[in-house]
Amino acid sequence: MSLPPEFAFIARHFRPLAGPGALGLADDTAVFDPPPGRSLVVAADAMVQGVHFLPDDPGDLVGRKLLRVNLSDLAAMGATPLGYLLTLSVPPGLPDDWFAAFGAGLAADQQQFGLSLLGGDTTSTTGPLVLSLTILGHVAPGAALRRCGAQPGDGIWVTGTIGDGALGLDALQGRVPDPDGVLADRYHLPRPRLGLGLAGVAHAAMDVSDGLVQDLGHLARESGLAAEVFVADVPVSEAAQAARAAAGAGWRERVLAGGDDYELLLAVPESAEQALGETARRAGVAVTRIGRFQSGAPSVTLRERSGAVLPLERAGWSHF
Amino acid sequence: MSLPPEFAFIARHFRPLAGPGALGLADDTAVFDPPPGRSLVVAADAMVQGVHFLPDDPGDLVGRKLLRVNLSDLAAMGATPLGYLLTLSVPPGLPDDWFAAFGAGLAADQQQFGLSLLGGDTTSTTGPLVLSLTILGHVAPGAALRRCGAQPGDGIWVTGTIGDGALGLDALQGRVPDPDGVLADRYHLPRPRLGLGLAGVAHAAMDVSDGLVQDLGHLARESGLAAEVFVADVPVSEAAQAARAAAGAGWRERVLAGGDDYELLLAVPESAEQALGETARRAGVAVTRIGRFQSGAPSVTLRERSGAVLPLERAGWSHF
Repeated sequence: MSLPPEFAFIARHFRPLAGPGALGLADDTAVFDPPPGRSLVVAADAMVQGVHFLPDDPGDLVGRKLLRVNLSDLAAMGATPLGYLLTLSVPPGLPDDWFAAFGAGLAADQQQFGLSLLGGDTTSTTGPLVLSLTILGHVAPGAALRRCGAQPGDGIWVTGTIGDGALGLDALQGRVPDPDGVLADRYHLPRPRLGLGLAGVAHAAMDVSDGLVQDLGHLARESGLAAEVFVADVPVSEAAQAARAAAGAGWRERVLAGGDDYELLLAVPESAEQALGETARRAGVAVTRIGRFQSGAPSVTLRERSGAVLPLERAGWSHF
Repeated sequence: MSLPPEFAFIARHFRPLAGPGALGLADDTAVFDPPPGRSLVVAADAMVQGVHFLPDDPGDLVGRKLLRVNLSDLAAMGATPLGYLLTLSVPPGLPDDWFAAFGAGLAADQQQFGLSLLGGDTTSTTGPLVLSLTILGHVAPGAALRRCGAQPGDGIWVTGTIGDGALGLDALQGRVPDPDGVLADRYHLPRPRLGLGLAGVAHAAMDVSDGLVQDLGHLARESGLAAEVFVADVPVSEAAQAARAAAGAGWRERVLAGGDDYELLLAVPESAEQALGETARRAGVAVTRIGRFQSGAPSVTLRERSGAVLPLERAGWSHF
């Protein structure tokens, strides 16, 4: 008795990714015992061909990015990865090789980040490829980092550098130079900032996916505070600096509002700055203070070094 | 500071559905403490406009069906619902009213089945609407019903009636009569068979979503057994019988292989038949024995009352 084509497809590309609890993907459902004494953390992010990734992006990079944008949500909570479920809506004509690469990319990152596939679903569609991933993780009870926890006077910090992802997309589309492929790599392969040890250090956290200014707006709104950022302090990579001339007048807005950074945005009290520096150094991740939260109506203000307010036409990415 | 349109959309339609742990959908991630001493059960099912539902299906029915097909996966495991995550990939031009109805449908079924929204993601797409739902539930450790547990001699049982869903789609598309709308209702609104109390009664279970014959093939394959079904014993509703003349020669294949039943398929030893009858009666769900598992190479054989083997051109639904 042979498998129907859909189930042979699943067995070929996804059964090798299945971990404990996945029941070999033979059932529709996974069953597992959650780590005792831990809270569970769950998040879901979808990616659509032509919206979140380019039609000619290699399958392995798409698989890894899909997993990593979800891992970045766990990182923002200070959580540890456990497993994931995956649904694919597949258009006609995508070659089997593409999915073989997609599975290989997922396999590589599963090993790197310590999680495995629990289940999912495969359907057909008449539209572009749609990938939806639900990730599960765990955290010590009460230790999850929220968006609503920032306090007046907290410094606004970011990990890594900002703007590389958006400029990487520009580079892949031929709008800016990227001689070493650094920017394209940052677009294709986010670095989820897991294991930073932020519990007891940061008052609030989120990951930067839709653009620094818009995402900082979410932190400000949920915490009921005014956020002030000194634009000159926003950390920018050498590769992003090198693309500045080609990008022209829009470069600064692209960095501040372009999205696809998957760095963490943190609210850290002055008393915890030393602890933040130490935990970040141990993890090998740069952290930079870019501004401060103040009492006031929720808002984001961008300032030049002189104190002058910088207007911004577009704060970030919205799907509608 | 106003919300970007995407986030206002989420706040309008989905924040009212958020339950404990969802953090008001203000964060990307939900955090909750799993029920102590219980195993967790997770499953995901996607639905695509034009594939799983009709472009003019009302939003409330689509929302309820999406939730119910996932609840049906929990029912097949004997699990209790806990919560769900939802990702939507939305084409341009779908009116806001449609999503208001979609949310209202989810709200009604959340209350009926005792679960709430934990989180998710909304994206744009150039293709048809794609909805992906991940459901979480819980079950006593070791009590989850698997596909691989059927034993030689076990009776093959189904809940409810088979074929109504597929004939309901035919009715909606004008191919068969449906004067009371019974078949269309069965297509739009699956009845997840939760709370049947099958632990210790059934050796194996799954839900029938892709057609009785194909899904029974999964049970047979995973349990390593030959399945024999007496076609005349497959329970068929009055509405399905009434559509028989109009459906013509294809009626029987439509019933046996059409899919969209969301009834349970069970392997039950003779010693547990009385217990099955009692628990089903308490739940108000009909159960019918339609055949038996035997030792032998995994297979599904359909027999007439005379014992003659019935050929079937198509066993069930495959997306590829």
